[in-house]
Amino acid sequence: MIKVGVIGYGYWGPNLVRNFHEHPETAVAMVCDLDDALLSKVRMRYPTIETTQSLDALLADPELDAVAVATPITTHFDIALQAINAGKHVLVEKPLAHDVACCDQLISAAAARDVVLMVDHTFPFTPAVQRIKQLIDDGEIGDVLYYDSVRVNLGLFQHDVNVIWDLAVHDLSILEYLLDDKPTMVSATGISHVEGHPENQAYLTLQYDARLIAHIHVNWLAPLKVRQTLIGGTEKMIVYDDTEITEKLKVYDKGITTDQSPESVYQMRVGYRAGDMWAPHLDHGEALRNLVTEFVACVQTGKTPLTHAESGRRIVRVMEAASESVKENGRPVTL
Amino acid sequence: MIKVGVIGYGYWGPNLVRNFHEHPETAVAMVCDLDDALLSKVRMRYPTIETTQSLDALLADPELDAVAVATPITTHFDIALQAINAGKHVLVEKPLAHDVACCDQLISAAAARDVVLMVDHTFPFTPAVQRIKQLIDDGEIGDVLYYDSVRVNLGLFQHDVNVIWDLAVHDLSILEYLLDDKPTMVSATGISHVEGHPENQAYLTLQYDARLIAHIHVNWLAPLKVRQTLIGGTEKMIVYDDTEITEKLKVYDKGITTDQSPESVYQMRVGYRAGDMWAPHLDHGEALRNLVTEFVACVQTGKTPLTHAESGRRIVRVMEAASESVKENGRPVTL
Amino acid sequence: MIKVGVIGYGYWGPNLVRNFHEHPETAVAMVCDLDDALLSKVRMRYPTIETTQSLDALLADPELDAVAVATPITTHFDIALQAINAGKHVLVEKPLAHDVACCDQLISAAAARDVVLMVDHTFPFTPAVQRIKQLIDDGEIGDVLYYDSVRVNLGLFQHDVNVIWDLAVHDLSILEYLLDDKPTMVSATGISHVEGHPENQAYLTLQYDARLIAHIHVNWLAPLKVRQTLIGGTEKMIVYDDTEITEKLKVYDKGITTDQSPESVYQMRVGYRAGDMWAPHLDHGEALRNLVTEFVACVQTGKTPLTHAESGRRIVRVMEAASESVKENGRPVTL
Amino acid sequence: MIKVGVIGYGYWGPNLVRNFHEHPETAVAMVCDLDDALLSKVRMRYPTIETTQSLDALLADPELDAVAVATPITTHFDIALQAINAGKHVLVEKPLAHDVACCDQLISAAAARDVVLMVDHTFPFTPAVQRIKQLIDDGEIGDVLYYDSVRVNLGLFQHDVNVIWDLAVHDLSILEYLLDDKPTMVSATGISHVEGHPENQAYLTLQYDARLIAHIHVNWLAPLKVRQTLIGGTEKMIVYDDTEITEKLKVYDKGITTDQSPESVYQMRVGYRAGDMWAPHLDHGEALRNLVTEFVACVQTGKTPLTHAESGRRIVRVMEAASESVKENGRPVTL
Repeated sequence: MIKVGVIGYGYWGPNLVRNFHEHPETAVAMVCDLDDALLSKVRMRYPTIETTQSLDALLADPELDAVAVATPITTHFDIALQAINAGKHVLVEKPLAHDVACCDQLISAAAARDVVLMVDHTFPFTPAVQRIKQLIDDGEIGDVLYYDSVRVNLGLFQHDVNVIWDLAVHDLSILEYLLDDKPTMVSATGISHVEGHPENQAYLTLQYDARLIAHIHVNWLAPLKVRQTLIGGTEKMIVYDDTEITEKLKVYDKGITTDQSPESVYQMRVGYRAGDMWAPHLDHGEALRNLVTEFVACVQTGKTPLTHAESGRRIVRVMEAASESVKENGRPVTL
Repeated sequence: MIKVGVIGYGYWGPNLVRNFHEHPETAVAMVCDLDDALLSKVRMRYPTIETTQSLDALLADPELDAVAVATPITTHFDIALQAINAGKHVLVEKPLAHDVACCDQLISAAAARDVVLMVDHTFPFTPAVQRIKQLIDDGEIGDVLYYDSVRVNLGLFQHDVNVIWDLAVHDLSILEYLLDDKPTMVSATGISHVEGHPENQAYLTLQYDARLIAHIHVNWLAPLKVRQTLIGGTEKMIVYDDTEITEKLKVYDKGITTDQSPESVYQMRVGYRAGDMWAPHLDHGEALRNLVTEFVACVQTGKTPLTHAESGRRIVRVMEAASESVKENGRPVTL
Repeated sequence: MIKVGVIGYGYWGPNLVRNFHEHPETAVAMVCDLDDALLSKVRMRYPTIETTQSLDALLADPELDAVAVATPITTHFDIALQAINAGKHVLVEKPLAHDVACCDQLISAAAARDVVLMVDHTFPFTPAVQRIKQLIDDGEIGDVLYYDSVRVNLGLFQHDVNVIWDLAVHDLSILEYLLDDKPTMVSATGISHVEGHPENQAYLTLQYDARLIAHIHVNWLAPLKVRQTLIGGTEKMIVYDDTEITEKLKVYDKGITTDQSPESVYQMRVGYRAGDMWAPHLDHGEALRNLVTEFVACVQTGKTPLTHAESGRRIVRVMEAASESVKENGRPVTL
Repeated sequence: MIKVGVIGYGYWGPNLVRNFHEHPETAVAMVCDLDDALLSKVRMRYPTIETTQSLDALLADPELDAVAVATPITTHFDIALQAINAGKHVLVEKPLAHDVACCDQLISAAAARDVVLMVDHTFPFTPAVQRIKQLIDDGEIGDVLYYDSVRVNLGLFQHDVNVIWDLAVHDLSILEYLLDDKPTMVSATGISHVEGHPENQAYLTLQYDARLIAHIHVNWLAPLKVRQTLIGGTEKMIVYDDTEITEKLKVYDKGITTDQSPESVYQMRVGYRAGDMWAPHLDHGEALRNLVTEFVACVQTGKTPLTHAESGRRIVRVMEAASESVKENGRPVTL
């Protein structure tokens, strides 16, 4: 039984507490938050869990094997570093830290103390994204030609980070998981509609060495919720709509065929192909539960987490570069 | 009765012929195409319309008051210029020409000969886009904050122009019509998935001096047809889905409210507002018929067309700059 | 080349003329309508087709091999009978006639004169319904358990027939085509919302000897157009949505499993099964063209039409019985 | 503070316990169930609530002011009667009882003991149905012409009651709430697809004295979940789709207009009208919380519940009559 302390009981913390509480191989021993009103909710729902407003007290508890950090982004680095130095295995809410230098320090520290450092990127643990991965790995969709994602809604305007760090981070973690190729350049544009606030709308294009492009549209100021990803392949194409309840994934046997035309080696002839559509049945498992299971396995066996810190660092690097590109109206930034 | 000659009877020509034929104030006197097989269709459907394979013959006909040009993009300039010089009023299928220099020449020539030069940008003549214009002009949606359009499907891969010139042109004409502001900079990215072919997928961001951004996603290699435009305003937000048959336009009484917070002049407090949705009933009128009516009025009264050549030139300039930006991975190009 | 005369150029007649005109093995020689304004449209579109206001003149033309009847329902019998007696092969717009006795007379007359008598029930000739038939015949969906159809919209209120004769007729023709079993009893309810008009809303339940039920909801006074049919089978279930453009048919690998429980021979244990969904690609062929091809084959070879008169008579019998049941608030009527 | 005992902790009981627990004016003092495994869940989630397997023990507790009954349908009568006789206010999960005679007995007993007897029909307490009621009462939709509901999915096959008692009960309670008119006759058809089980698919038509019809389609064996209700009015029409998250209600300014034609007093001329669509914003309140608030008010003030027992009895009568009609293939049964 792995004893876990959860730090932060705001938006995401309750989900972490519930999942660590219900998982057969973990137990939540303590929850820490600066706000005692939030802690009183913990005490009501889970009378057996200890609560504290003191981070030091939590980290000093020798009973705790691991901690989960679900605090504001800019505090991730400091809290995670203390936890690592206290010898705890650490799960950090996404993103790993607010800049690449901090990511590097966390990675070094975790290596030095030989503790697990895992990022809570949830999407790679969803049945839908796992099925996409399987379709790609099995060669069903052929070479991936593009990834195009729209992730918009009327969302909470954040004060400390722009919309890229809040929403595009999900697509970047999905791309990390799905593709072996890593982006080499990013161009991004965006806008803030409220003076003094970070960008609430942004567009990112990731360039790869392969004949592949990724584009992400994120927006906190949209009239309706859209979570739609198109993935084009040479053999098939996928539409992944996360707002659908039962048919999140549709696989289209549609595309183009190309033949070398006799006239020219450069000019291909393009043909069109339209076939069946197919919506694979997906499990209903909760992603966070799968993620906790992975964290447990890493703590127990020393295996590298699926959403490991190096991957988390690459995601932070892309967001850093994209935010820089936004300031310069789309000037491409090399990764 | 205005006598019209139609040049080009491929994809769009038949629509022009039908509309000029059925309009009470115009008559199609002649149709010209290099391919006699296409002309034989004209003869079967419209036994009274003359056909010819000779452009010179058509332009030499003194009976013709006007011509409509529906030939491949790279031929627009040459044919339109000859028609102007033959003293005909000219309607050119979009875009006006394949580069800005050619647009300038056409504009000068039309001014010199005092003939109408109008571009066949159809969308500003649709009931849906006209209703959006009215909502903006009446102040119903407040200040426009963004325009975001997705225009993708499994479409015909063209050989001579990239997807921007084929699809983004529609959004650029809608933006020209809706907004008094004109873009000052463009950043675009894109990719060609078939060697030797122009880009089949592209993303454009237009920057404006006002707190306003426009983004256009166009793609010939998508598994499903999407024609969805989000328009954010300070008061209301619009979703325009052109694939819908009866509810193309939805107006959401949703958005944010901002208050100057006492702590800081820079930091606004953001509130959220959710209200009713409303789908205005739209007329079923055919856009091209409205466009022909406009062309007639311009010929008869000398008024400037809604989709005039100066506007068409600005659209060409954006596409030229966007295509340039694509080659440089998103580097912004000033307009 | 089969020479065809078309009688009636109102709503459906133009489709018949177009299809017989374009089919390689048929030609429209004459069109008859009481209204010369309609005939003038024929003359404009098809200068080679003769027109007449006289039914006698048309039937007297020895050149005509066949006639298609697209007149109001209550005139079908009289016109079709005259055409048969004039020795013409006959295609009658659905339904065959306005009562069963008239159907019987037409069937006898056609047999006596040895001419083809086919009913223009279009749905069995659509790619979607043909694919459903194939799925059933191949055993893919198992035993059919139910057919449930909703066919409603804001439609033209007719004066001479109720909504059953206008809309339910389509589902009855689909059932005739799909199932070998024939209904043995019908119960129907309905209402007229306009005094002096026939019912504009009705519900029909058809009972079969097999463990099978069919239900049809038709309505001329609905705010939106629905064309949705659910077909339940022991193995799979089909959703057929005719308002969809590209995915009209969805096949769900979903259902129940039943096991004889040990406690009782009567009580089955029910299990649930959920699997993939699959949307087969359908051809885009026009149904009416397929129907004309069938009519041609029947005229040329003497084969029995797919939508033969006996089947058309059974459909009329169900509508007669259903209309009777409506008057008695659902009292079942044996077929 | 009203002290409540909850009887039955299967499917619906947990919702009742949660709502009575969280409501500021009620407290759950005891939960009773035959199955101690279910009671152990109560003890884990709510350490302060007492649990018992003995109904007598619960009813004997003088501290309890009221009980909520959430047991299988056929046990409602017996348990509710005991609770009434023990002097408790009673909330019974829908339907009130399994036959009309039992309903009558409960009503008499509650009157005799002067306790509240309320039925837990949840839908009249939802924001969507309450908004429909308001639209009707304000005259916005004019006279109601029809109510048409489809309530189908792959649902749990029940052993003791047919699908009418499980699903149609919801529509009957909505009709009770929305309309002053009460149905005078019912015709129903249905089928059981599993031998020895009650009907899993049924169709009900309710006839009213007014020019009004109601139809309900319920089905446990459907491939997809449909919860769609059309309500036709002389002025406007409503589409209520309970599977939608944000736009459950759409109001269409569409319909027909009728004019007395000069030729006949019986024959009306029908015109068609199409206008805007409008989706009113709805509160997100939980229906069961509203229902608990109503129960509290009734206990405190003696007011008659919105979903009172007389109304619950009428619903049971319709279901009894409908089930009888199903056995006779749709023969209408007078209410």
